[in-house]
Amino acid sequence: MMLSSWFRLKYPHIAVGALASSAPILYFDGIAPRHGYFYVVTKDFKDTSESCYNTIRKSWHVIDRIAKKPNGLSILSKRFKICKKLSTSSNLKDYLGSIYTGVAQYNDPHENTLKVICDAIDGAANKTDVLGQIFEGVVAYHDKKKKPCYEMEGNKEPTETDIGWAWQTCSEMVVPIGVDKDDSLFQPVPFNMKEFVNDCQKQYGVFPQPHWVTTYYGGPDLKLNLKRFASNIIFSNGLKDPYSSGGVLKSISDSIIAVITKNGSHCLDLGSEDPRDPHWLITQRNTEMKIIKGWIDKYQADLRNSTK
Amino acid sequence: MMLSSWFRLKYPHIAVGALASSAPILYFDGIAPRHGYFYVVTKDFKDTSESCYNTIRKSWHVIDRIAKKPNGLSILSKRFKICKKLSTSSNLKDYLGSIYTGVAQYNDPHENTLKVICDAIDGAANKTDVLGQIFEGVVAYHDKKKKPCYEMEGNKEPTETDIGWAWQTCSEMVVPIGVDKDDSLFQPVPFNMKEFVNDCQKQYGVFPQPHWVTTYYGGPDLKLNLKRFASNIIFSNGLKDPYSSGGVLKSISDSIIAVITKNGSHCLDLGSEDPRDPHWLITQRNTEMKIIKGWIDKYQADLRNSTK
Repeated sequence: MMLSSWFRLKYPHIAVGALASSAPILYFDGIAPRHGYFYVVTKDFKDTSESCYNTIRKSWHVIDRIAKKPNGLSILSKRFKICKKLSTSSNLKDYLGSIYTGVAQYNDPHENTLKVICDAIDGAANKTDVLGQIFEGVVAYHDKKKKPCYEMEGNKEPTETDIGWAWQTCSEMVVPIGVDKDDSLFQPVPFNMKEFVNDCQKQYGVFPQPHWVTTYYGGPDLKLNLKRFASNIIFSNGLKDPYSSGGVLKSISDSIIAVITKNGSHCLDLGSEDPRDPHWLITQRNTEMKIIKGWIDKYQADLRNSTK
Repeated sequence: MMLSSWFRLKYPHIAVGALASSAPILYFDGIAPRHGYFYVVTKDFKDTSESCYNTIRKSWHVIDRIAKKPNGLSILSKRFKICKKLSTSSNLKDYLGSIYTGVAQYNDPHENTLKVICDAIDGAANKTDVLGQIFEGVVAYHDKKKKPCYEMEGNKEPTETDIGWAWQTCSEMVVPIGVDKDDSLFQPVPFNMKEFVNDCQKQYGVFPQPHWVTTYYGGPDLKLNLKRFASNIIFSNGLKDPYSSGGVLKSISDSIIAVITKNGSHCLDLGSEDPRDPHWLITQRNTEMKIIKGWIDKYQADLRNSTK
């Protein structure tokens, strides 16, 4: 919800305050390190299971090695029970990658899908090889309901959020995220602005504006700027959320307040109440409600005083 | 310079502060009374010379009365030595009106053209009638250089400022100014939004957006809003400037500072130094420079602290 903090910055007379949950506003124009996102994903897996992390790390090379064989794509398609035969190993790797980043980002305390996957991967270690372990992770991701085959691509209609995000990041909101650390869960793919610009131009016919956000909302001294000219923003982050790597994790002033949760993931505080919610999530929501109530009370009091 | 205050509001990370000289930011959407502008023009004339004010007030009716005669426009054209015969008496009244508002708005302490005009009008009282007095004012306005004839209209190329202001006020910056007070120097012409919109549409083919400024920058509670979310703006006004009627004339906070001069006119503080500058103008500029220096010093200090 970067938009909410930006709206408060530009329209403080309309929005009394903003709850910017999981807002990586420091990601733009390279203020925060570009590998932060995948660094957190990696750490989430490592913290959950070192052996799971190691198996996934190993698996990319195994896939690459098999893919190079004359009948490699057939072997991979069969081992992962892919409905339509793979046309390239990248599709498989992208699919697996999106599962891992997805569960890291959206891991919630009730399901803990990340642990479910890692338990499946680790649990299969004695009866199968690396690919078999990874496949058990995929099965676990699909609620352990064994399917006759698994769709890898093209079977999902993009949601409005998908479509909107793709356009936003290709136009005014260029978020430079890449893998460039050797100890990552993933194979290194550093963010490449030139390729990114080319892809966006092909897809939308527009040039991304990587400096737009920092020009419009503030750049390298953003935290100092926020301290001087902003007020009434909560930056809330769960530290397990990979986007927290571009977030404001420390309070900047009395009214630019960071609320962090050690075990939280992406936008958990914006979800509705659940009887199974852990104590720390209930506390987080209460803290935020109290701060917001304070803003509204102060606004009302100021208004009463000014019209006296 | 409303734009400078607005720029500071929206881009505080780019502009450390703003000197908003003669900025009638309270004029929009009817926050300040619509007759304020002409109220101040009237007061400027009254304060300079009650008899001058009375003569001008009377003159409109005299012009109207003569214009109604069969050869009225010829009489008026001759008495005012107009180069090209008047096609309507409105042109004459508009021309005279623009002289009076112009000298009230831009009256400067060296020339004091307003007093020069009133002295001429008052001085002619014993030797001529009302129209003759008014004509002496016109002559005095033209530096007393008697011309063979006077151009009333169409002889001036509009400046870039004229063109820009006409477009701005017809699009996003609708300033509702009208004459609706009976004791005005002028005949009542209340601001008529419908007519204004029609005229703008005819001229530019666009609809003016009278609520745009208040939506974008803040509306009825603007002063409260400025107090809460703005900083580092000087609102400077000369109280003889008709636009001061829509200006911020009292400091709103430690860093939203009103600087007023009793005898100042429009944007005098932005002009260059002149050896003839009165003491109060020199003091005004020094005050503003000191405030601005304070902003820059604080900015630099903050920056040093933040990079430690």
